[in-house]
Amino acid sequence: MFDDLIAAVGAEHVCTGDDPAVADLCADEALGVPAGKPAYVVWPADRDEVAAVVRAARAAGASLTARGAGTGLSGAATPDDGAVLVSFARMDRILEIDPADAVAVVQPGVSLADLDAAAGEHGLTYPVHPGETTASVGGTVATNAGGMRAVRYGVTRSHVLGLEAVLADGSVVLTGGKLVKISSGYDVTQLLVGSEGTLALVTEVIVRLHPRLPARRTVLAPFPNAEAVTSAVSAVVASGLGPTICEYLDGPTMRAVCAAADLSLGLPEDLVDADHLLVELAGRRQERVDKDAEELAELLARQGAADVFDLPTGSVRRLVEAREKTFWAIKAAGADEIVDLVVPRSAMATFLARARAAGDAHGSRVLGCGHAGDGNVHLAVFQPDPDRLARTLHDVFAAGTALGGAVSGEHGVGRAKAHHLEEFGDPGALDVVRRVRAALDPEGTLNPGCAVRLSGGR
Amino acid sequence: MFDDLIAAVGAEHVCTGDDPAVADLCADEALGVPAGKPAYVVWPADRDEVAAVVRAARAAGASLTARGAGTGLSGAATPDDGAVLVSFARMDRILEIDPADAVAVVQPGVSLADLDAAAGEHGLTYPVHPGETTASVGGTVATNAGGMRAVRYGVTRSHVLGLEAVLADGSVVLTGGKLVKISSGYDVTQLLVGSEGTLALVTEVIVRLHPRLPARRTVLAPFPNAEAVTSAVSAVVASGLGPTICEYLDGPTMRAVCAAADLSLGLPEDLVDADHLLVELAGRRQERVDKDAEELAELLARQGAADVFDLPTGSVRRLVEAREKTFWAIKAAGADEIVDLVVPRSAMATFLARARAAGDAHGSRVLGCGHAGDGNVHLAVFQPDPDRLARTLHDVFAAGTALGGAVSGEHGVGRAKAHHLEEFGDPGALDVVRRVRAALDPEGTLNPGCAVRLSGGR
Repeated sequence: MFDDLIAAVGAEHVCTGDDPAVADLCADEALGVPAGKPAYVVWPADRDEVAAVVRAARAAGASLTARGAGTGLSGAATPDDGAVLVSFARMDRILEIDPADAVAVVQPGVSLADLDAAAGEHGLTYPVHPGETTASVGGTVATNAGGMRAVRYGVTRSHVLGLEAVLADGSVVLTGGKLVKISSGYDVTQLLVGSEGTLALVTEVIVRLHPRLPARRTVLAPFPNAEAVTSAVSAVVASGLGPTICEYLDGPTMRAVCAAADLSLGLPEDLVDADHLLVELAGRRQERVDKDAEELAELLARQGAADVFDLPTGSVRRLVEAREKTFWAIKAAGADEIVDLVVPRSAMATFLARARAAGDAHGSRVLGCGHAGDGNVHLAVFQPDPDRLARTLHDVFAAGTALGGAVSGEHGVGRAKAHHLEEFGDPGALDVVRRVRAALDPEGTLNPGCAVRLSGGR
Repeated sequence: MFDDLIAAVGAEHVCTGDDPAVADLCADEALGVPAGKPAYVVWPADRDEVAAVVRAARAAGASLTARGAGTGLSGAATPDDGAVLVSFARMDRILEIDPADAVAVVQPGVSLADLDAAAGEHGLTYPVHPGETTASVGGTVATNAGGMRAVRYGVTRSHVLGLEAVLADGSVVLTGGKLVKISSGYDVTQLLVGSEGTLALVTEVIVRLHPRLPARRTVLAPFPNAEAVTSAVSAVVASGLGPTICEYLDGPTMRAVCAAADLSLGLPEDLVDADHLLVELAGRRQERVDKDAEELAELLARQGAADVFDLPTGSVRRLVEAREKTFWAIKAAGADEIVDLVVPRSAMATFLARARAAGDAHGSRVLGCGHAGDGNVHLAVFQPDPDRLARTLHDVFAAGTALGGAVSGEHGVGRAKAHHLEEFGDPGALDVVRRVRAALDPEGTLNPGCAVRLSGGR
């Protein structure tokens, strides 16, 4: 296989998996998913090289895992032992920013930050904004990444209009195009988005861009409890104010975030431990956003906010950035696992209460924050004992799915949550997934250790 | 099979296909797709009856076609001869409007008009609005229907959050939920949306609702040519004004629409034959919409509009309704085929010119209108000679797909366009579709005459 890989990408772009230089590439950021030991790591330069690599791996009976920037949180970029690990680091070109169609055409290795910056030169934005903007477009397509701005703009899935991808047999598919709507048979684009490298390796992506909004305003409202936050979130969504951010942070998470960012918001001490709702509005005209912020503040007060703080720009930026980096703060604080279950928006408080009760029952500490506008709750679970941790997580996933939730809102399933999906997903839907996967990759070449199966939301 | 169907749904809900009472159910509105001759028509009452019907048809080796309201334009609801035709007319209940989560749970036989009215009682709207609001939710899920408001809200696919569906073997799948985001393995919801009854029969749908916007304003701008309209559309989209409607009508279509609605807009006679752009803005506050309308008018003038007419409410309502009914006006005028190719937004004028040239080359008359904000061009082709018509259509599809377009933007493929998709779709993507279809329906029970295959957009 080594010779075939060298023939595919050139000797200078292959190395063996035991090379110390690639140690950092053998895992992503998922807690609790150990690094794999790939046989080879390759850096293809284009689609045809990717196809040659796939054929070489398949012919050798090796498995193959794609890797973007490695910022994923579910282990979907972690290779099997003996696998071929395909890095897209060299395929990092922005091929086109097309303002007339408001789309970009990019290679999968482009970072979200670079894509958004390039779009910005045309007054446009690519608003998919998970915690790490060093994430690659390809990785976010594989995991259907979300982030804070999904409440306004939708997740990655909403933005991918077309793909070029290499299947397990090395053949190439072209899907979609610079087309904001399409009804021409099964949507293969949408089938590939979120499939975590198990159906195809994406080699080119066409994404939708949006007009960049110059005006914004952010308010922070501490509430007496999560129930009040949940009601307020439904009211904010119903208002039509269309927030760009609608985030929940419990007291301990707020403390951890502010400490990690060395940020003081000047809140009265008794309010720091409240349940917080952070809402950003954005628009084309500052005076309208200002007026909407007043309306929002009144709405939040009516919903029972203890106070409503109109945050100054500098503090907001730092708080939002710190919130985006919550994972790192939580990791630094020693969290043993993170969870990003999604539940119906109105069920957030109930789920939080049940998740904390599950933690209490097993002696685990459970902190919560999340994309409240989307019902996407992020929990940090502190429990060093593996058995107790497993039982805590089981009960947390049981609680969330019993409320109509799904195993992951935006991180994906990967290796970290495959068994939860297996246990709590709809059996019929899981069977569909298995049949589709077998139809497209009968030999199990693509990311086989990454058991992507569908989670029924009910 | 007759006995099994009676056992499945009750004798009073089965009839044979030669019963004159069902003649109207044996085709949809597609021009050029002849009615089928089903062996039986059944009206199941719930999911379990649907599953029993599917099992009965499969056991007898019969094919099965689902039918909503029959307003489709591609023949996807037209049964094969000898098929079991499944009407969802009895499964027409709105099960829940959930304001806190801004979702509705409905049976597939509910009409779009009824769903939107029920949502309206809670200050919400279901904005999917193809020409016929008598269309059923199930039919629009099957075809991924769009309509004029897709430019703001997206198509059906953007709204479907979860499904209950019966597969070809009679098993039931539950997908998604009241969840606005999800990344828990392959998105089976999105796989089923747009699959035109070839993968499953949908028995329950969870859709997203939006806040109802009380304020609106509509302007009509005649342009000297379609190129100017196309440039103006890109500018409108880039402006961030976020129109709810952004429609193109050529002069003859405008005349036909106004004549069908007995509507006089009071335009100077020389402007009626111009290339028209109709733009609606909507929002929460009338004063903002009014100010945006001024900004829009200035933008359109800068883009070369011959004039910009601020339409009075009554005329607008009638014009928009008449535009929605264009299909009927075109049909009454004797059109022989309609086309709803989608191309990149910026390619609309080029495509229109090439489509008209294709018409001229074969002596066919080609009129155009379309959802300009989406690049979704609707053509009416007048050519009574079947051979000339076929050659005209071939050249039109060749022109559109050569510009990066796809066979259908919102009507679907059905029986009407299967051969175009086969000819112009990406072979790799078509192969994926065939493999997925074979994996889920190996015996070809579900709508086999309806060759749903993917159209590559490039």
